[in-house]
Amino acid sequence: MDVHNFFLILFLILITARILGEIFARMQMPSVLGELSAGILLGVSGLGLIEVNDVLKVLAEIGILLLLFEIGLDTDIKRLKDAGSKSVIVAIVGAVFPFTLSTLVAYYLFDLTLVVSFFIGGTLTATSIGITMRVLRDLKKEQTDIAQIVIGAAVIDDILGVIILVFIYDFATSQELSMTNTLNTAVFIILFLILAPIFAHLLSHMMKKFDKHKKVPGLIPTVIISLIALFAYLSHLLGAPEILGAFAAGIALSRRFILPFGMGLRNDKIFLQKVKNAIEPIAQMFTPIFFVMVGLSMNLRVIDFSSPKFWLLAVVFLLIAIIGKYIGVFLLKNTSTIKKALIGISMVPRGEVGLIFAEVGRVNGILDNQIYAVLIFVIIVTTVVPPFLLKWLFKYEKSL
Amino acid sequence: MDVHNFFLILFLILITARILGEIFARMQMPSVLGELSAGILLGVSGLGLIEVNDVLKVLAEIGILLLLFEIGLDTDIKRLKDAGSKSVIVAIVGAVFPFTLSTLVAYYLFDLTLVVSFFIGGTLTATSIGITMRVLRDLKKEQTDIAQIVIGAAVIDDILGVIILVFIYDFATSQELSMTNTLNTAVFIILFLILAPIFAHLLSHMMKKFDKHKKVPGLIPTVIISLIALFAYLSHLLGAPEILGAFAAGIALSRRFILPFGMGLRNDKIFLQKVKNAIEPIAQMFTPIFFVMVGLSMNLRVIDFSSPKFWLLAVVFLLIAIIGKYIGVFLLKNTSTIKKALIGISMVPRGEVGLIFAEVGRVNGILDNQIYAVLIFVIIVTTVVPPFLLKWLFKYEKSL
Repeated sequence: MDVHNFFLILFLILITARILGEIFARMQMPSVLGELSAGILLGVSGLGLIEVNDVLKVLAEIGILLLLFEIGLDTDIKRLKDAGSKSVIVAIVGAVFPFTLSTLVAYYLFDLTLVVSFFIGGTLTATSIGITMRVLRDLKKEQTDIAQIVIGAAVIDDILGVIILVFIYDFATSQELSMTNTLNTAVFIILFLILAPIFAHLLSHMMKKFDKHKKVPGLIPTVIISLIALFAYLSHLLGAPEILGAFAAGIALSRRFILPFGMGLRNDKIFLQKVKNAIEPIAQMFTPIFFVMVGLSMNLRVIDFSSPKFWLLAVVFLLIAIIGKYIGVFLLKNTSTIKKALIGISMVPRGEVGLIFAEVGRVNGILDNQIYAVLIFVIIVTTVVPPFLLKWLFKYEKSL
Repeated sequence: MDVHNFFLILFLILITARILGEIFARMQMPSVLGELSAGILLGVSGLGLIEVNDVLKVLAEIGILLLLFEIGLDTDIKRLKDAGSKSVIVAIVGAVFPFTLSTLVAYYLFDLTLVVSFFIGGTLTATSIGITMRVLRDLKKEQTDIAQIVIGAAVIDDILGVIILVFIYDFATSQELSMTNTLNTAVFIILFLILAPIFAHLLSHMMKKFDKHKKVPGLIPTVIISLIALFAYLSHLLGAPEILGAFAAGIALSRRFILPFGMGLRNDKIFLQKVKNAIEPIAQMFTPIFFVMVGLSMNLRVIDFSSPKFWLLAVVFLLIAIIGKYIGVFLLKNTSTIKKALIGISMVPRGEVGLIFAEVGRVNGILDNQIYAVLIFVIIVTTVVPPFLLKWLFKYEKSL
């Protein structure tokens, strides 16, 4: 890759995302969809100006890490705990139901092989935290109890998604259903989620003290970014998604942090504000790159809209994908219908996680072109429609 | 490249640069040398943990672009104009003298071929703006008239360096001495340097107006970064170094901007402060990556310190490299001896420009291992020693 040409790519991505994001916002549509459209426009589905490459992947990944870090930073851990049981219900039902139902339908109804069926199940399972969180953030709804339930559920959902991935990967390589690796991964992730925030919290106290005596400016941006990078790496090393590492780092630096066994600690408000001020412009630069990347990865050209079988598969899996995430909310107690609707819709977007899953399946020859196209279609619809519904429902809720 | 492992690399780079930068600063040494040492420690000369790759190259390049943008932003164009004639003298003498002298010495005294001699001349010509600017910035001396002369001279020096590069490249491919391409490049660069700031200035006025009505947060970081990326790309397209584009963008957004024909325009102070606040943490995150990269690229292992011929070549070219940059200051009028010394020393570092030149020569089989090692040695000494001298001389000047 030519380093120089990359700057043209970076310019096109940032400026198109900014212009389309702004146009969408003015048309009362979620700006994140403008950024997604920028990717579709610039990529293989549109003008074909930009191909995905390693540098873009890294910048996009930094973008989603920073978004999750900021969300972690804004999370009130006490309220997240209060949302706890509701989050668990939404997440577990929303992971188990789409996975088993789509696997069973693919295997028994559409006569696909078990590996293919598992892959379809996996693709349709994991919620894309990014899209929903961005919408909640843009609507300034991150502090609502709905958002707390969704954040909790999305984190648990991500963990379950990885466990399912390990399970499928094991099966695809060994053709046997073994639970050892799957359980190991689960234990590692839980250990990480307990230990990481404690470590990050101690580090933040050291940093706060050191910040007053530093000789070289720029302590906060460099140390925070390296903390996020380290946690993302460790998280991946233990088999968890990188964004969980970034989220854990954010949680640990948030205002009210609770150690295990209920020991509550408060972080310094001024220091927290310094961290926010330093990270905000960096995140604002990187996060659009992530959403443009998701758009770049959506190849609309593979979809053959004239095939009846495509529509049959697409409608069936789309219904499973939506209802599967939605069913958990009916088990929630003390929650109004409109809040249930908001929570359910927030969990629907599949976005980048599904795209990566489908891509792995296609590249390894597990998914044929038609199944791949069906999955891409389902991912696009589940990603594009919920932001509209969320925006509209929040407005409706306010008018009540 | 594995995206996940990159986060470990990013962590190591940022944290090592921060720790060594801080240690160096506490030992009264320039922190930029700490960052350079971090690169030497982590790279092929030290622990061999990190190899240079495309992603790192891009991040490092963004780092130096942002540093030059910030310097442009802080530049008072009127004072830069006042420094004008002095800068021109320092730059022209400092480019012509090392180039011709080292080429002649290589060709006549050491019996090297003309292509090799030209390459040596080219490597020893271009000043590394980065090192000196970072030192001046760390010492808070960017606003002194010495800094203005050095900034002006460094920009002109960079242009001359590129013209020399085009000249050598032409000669190496065609074996003829033609001036057409060389002149074309010169014309393009001058046109760019006149037109780019006007365009950027108009854009900044649009942006300022639009900033009040924006619907999506983060206008300034995304638009400024895309402006810098575009200018870097255009600058490269016209044959100029990318950093000139970033510098031109900074100049255009600086507080007092002068259009050609003396029409002065002032930028809004509040808007300028917003731009500075948004870009500062981004620059603080990226610039250390650049200096670590320079360290990573310095392969100390190629140097055979036991060879007498190595020492002969190294001492001769080192003297030419230092005296060549220094000679121009003796032509300056109304300048105290200590200021002359400060200006001369500021122009000595060769840094990344020389490293790239030497690397191109080695990869294309033009430079053999010994000549390559000599050049690396000269670059390291010219890069590492001046920051110490500058710091010491500025202190001495203050005590007068």
